[in-house]
Amino acid sequence: MHATLIHAAGDIRWEEVPDPVLSTGGDAIVRVVAACVCGSDLWPFRGITATHEPHRIGHEFVGIVEEVGTEVSRIRVGDFVIAPFYDCDMTCVNCRNGFSTSCLNGGWWGAADRLGGFADGGQGERVRVPHADGSLVATPGIPDDGLVPHLLTLADVMGTGHHAAVSGGAGPGRSVVVVGDGAVGLCAVLAAHRLGAERIVAMSRHPERQALARRFGATDIVEERGTEGIARIRELFDGVGADVVLECVGTKESMDQALRSARPGGQVGFVGVPNGGPELPMRTLFDSNVGVRGGVAPVRNYVEELLPEVWDGRLEPGAVFDLELPMSEVAEAYAAMDERRAIKVLLRP
Amino acid sequence: MHATLIHAAGDIRWEEVPDPVLSTGGDAIVRVVAACVCGSDLWPFRGITATHEPHRIGHEFVGIVEEVGTEVSRIRVGDFVIAPFYDCDMTCVNCRNGFSTSCLNGGWWGAADRLGGFADGGQGERVRVPHADGSLVATPGIPDDGLVPHLLTLADVMGTGHHAAVSGGAGPGRSVVVVGDGAVGLCAVLAAHRLGAERIVAMSRHPERQALARRFGATDIVEERGTEGIARIRELFDGVGADVVLECVGTKESMDQALRSARPGGQVGFVGVPNGGPELPMRTLFDSNVGVRGGVAPVRNYVEELLPEVWDGRLEPGAVFDLELPMSEVAEAYAAMDERRAIKVLLRP
Repeated sequence: MHATLIHAAGDIRWEEVPDPVLSTGGDAIVRVVAACVCGSDLWPFRGITATHEPHRIGHEFVGIVEEVGTEVSRIRVGDFVIAPFYDCDMTCVNCRNGFSTSCLNGGWWGAADRLGGFADGGQGERVRVPHADGSLVATPGIPDDGLVPHLLTLADVMGTGHHAAVSGGAGPGRSVVVVGDGAVGLCAVLAAHRLGAERIVAMSRHPERQALARRFGATDIVEERGTEGIARIRELFDGVGADVVLECVGTKESMDQALRSARPGGQVGFVGVPNGGPELPMRTLFDSNVGVRGGVAPVRNYVEELLPEVWDGRLEPGAVFDLELPMSEVAEAYAAMDERRAIKVLLRP
Repeated sequence: MHATLIHAAGDIRWEEVPDPVLSTGGDAIVRVVAACVCGSDLWPFRGITATHEPHRIGHEFVGIVEEVGTEVSRIRVGDFVIAPFYDCDMTCVNCRNGFSTSCLNGGWWGAADRLGGFADGGQGERVRVPHADGSLVATPGIPDDGLVPHLLTLADVMGTGHHAAVSGGAGPGRSVVVVGDGAVGLCAVLAAHRLGAERIVAMSRHPERQALARRFGATDIVEERGTEGIARIRELFDGVGADVVLECVGTKESMDQALRSARPGGQVGFVGVPNGGPELPMRTLFDSNVGVRGGVAPVRNYVEELLPEVWDGRLEPGAVFDLELPMSEVAEAYAAMDERRAIKVLLRP
């Protein structure tokens, strides 16, 4: 089969690789129907994180189950399944607590797993899925092609936007500011709207992203950044800032923007992967009582809540995909997102 | 009248100072019935924070109202009142949001206030209280002497422990670890118990503090600290840590202990005044989904909730006072707390 490898910064290749095989009784082999490129994939692509040797990449996919191990009982051959951006057993204490990204037995795509096998990267034709009964969620049936992009967002981007909104405490009567107009930020707008927030500010300078933010439920757009952006946010909210700020970027600047946009006693929900390790200023948090909560999103725990609304068309997060390419053109997909020619690229084999 | 001044590290004096006068229509003059020494008063006493010139000190007191300004309507001469460790109007947006420590018009004891007057320090015979209608809460009547210590804790220490518990999300079904066995940590144990937490671990090495923690509702004591302490906490809670950790010290070591004692997706409620500015490790928070929330406690917003239980004897936080001295011996009060001969010292004029 073929799959995507990153060789070095800027060097993404579609290559022939070994077919996956069942290596434990709990595995499934999934034929990928759609995959996509994540904002966090751009970090090694841009050289912000180092690539020491060529390795498989990609962690968002949906597909059809082709084979299952002898211990798999919940997932069946022929199921259309959503895979989260990691694998997890959904039985350990952390999974049961709602934080499957901290699964005691889980792992990451494109790496050796804790069971001794290799869990393929998500940007490929097939993937061996460990803990298939835990990791995968089967949809109620085989979806139409048009529904596939929306379902694919439950693998990461929509679940991550939802995690930001939940971590920040978005809800009825709450004012929400979203820092970041990438696919996660846009999904955070949608999630905040879904959770009942009435006033949602999207911080964005790009007309097409502003338009999508409005479609997703943003009531206000703020184009300014930094100190000017903070002044504009405070002006909108009683001179003091918003109840909830969702940080969906991961840089020092974006976290600073988020912390200073929250009112005293407000809350920052963050899901931007910390890029370069900005540390949180303890004294600022102490003086302002602004809380900070979030992290790597346990999207698997959210699938059951979000799937019904996606399945019946009430929730259309797949609108974040503005470019679709054959998976063999994956290198162009990375380039388009890197150059911000696309918000998010969908890949089909 | 007499009041306490700090002249330099280790140099606390009981001196003659001018009597307070009403300087705005919203003021009250309160004759102090009881005051006390705060853990945070020890920082300038120990020279951890600098004292550049002699100034008034103390921020926890209860007393009898002797005079009120022409605009004061809620508070009356003769009322027994609880003052929070700051003044606030309770009408601005931050006060209404529940964060009166961020009052847009408030200030601190022992300093010039925003209305141009001087708000005396709390360790003195009388105090001018700005925004009296907002800052002060009158009790239902004049309390017995025995009730005074319990009421005094609502000025700071019990409200601060409660803030830690609320910020950390302590409640029914939640496991709670309290880092710090000072008066605030002990009140945090009491607050967590009051909020319904069933399993409460106090981290303490001092038998008398352990005993008080147990009286306040602690179910377990952990004497170990650092990596050993964390291992012990994880052992107690499914190998992963507690749902809620209350950080009541303020050092880099105590915050590290707190962050590593929380389970993935857990929450640290912090009220320890950050001492030396430890910054929060963003990547650790991201990977673990441990949230951090807290800060300078808006105790004024909690008085109405806590007062009835203190008034009728259900809640006895005043047990944290294990030494009582005449206020003229305030220097000895500081020394006793500094040397950990006393948990917390009550002062009466």
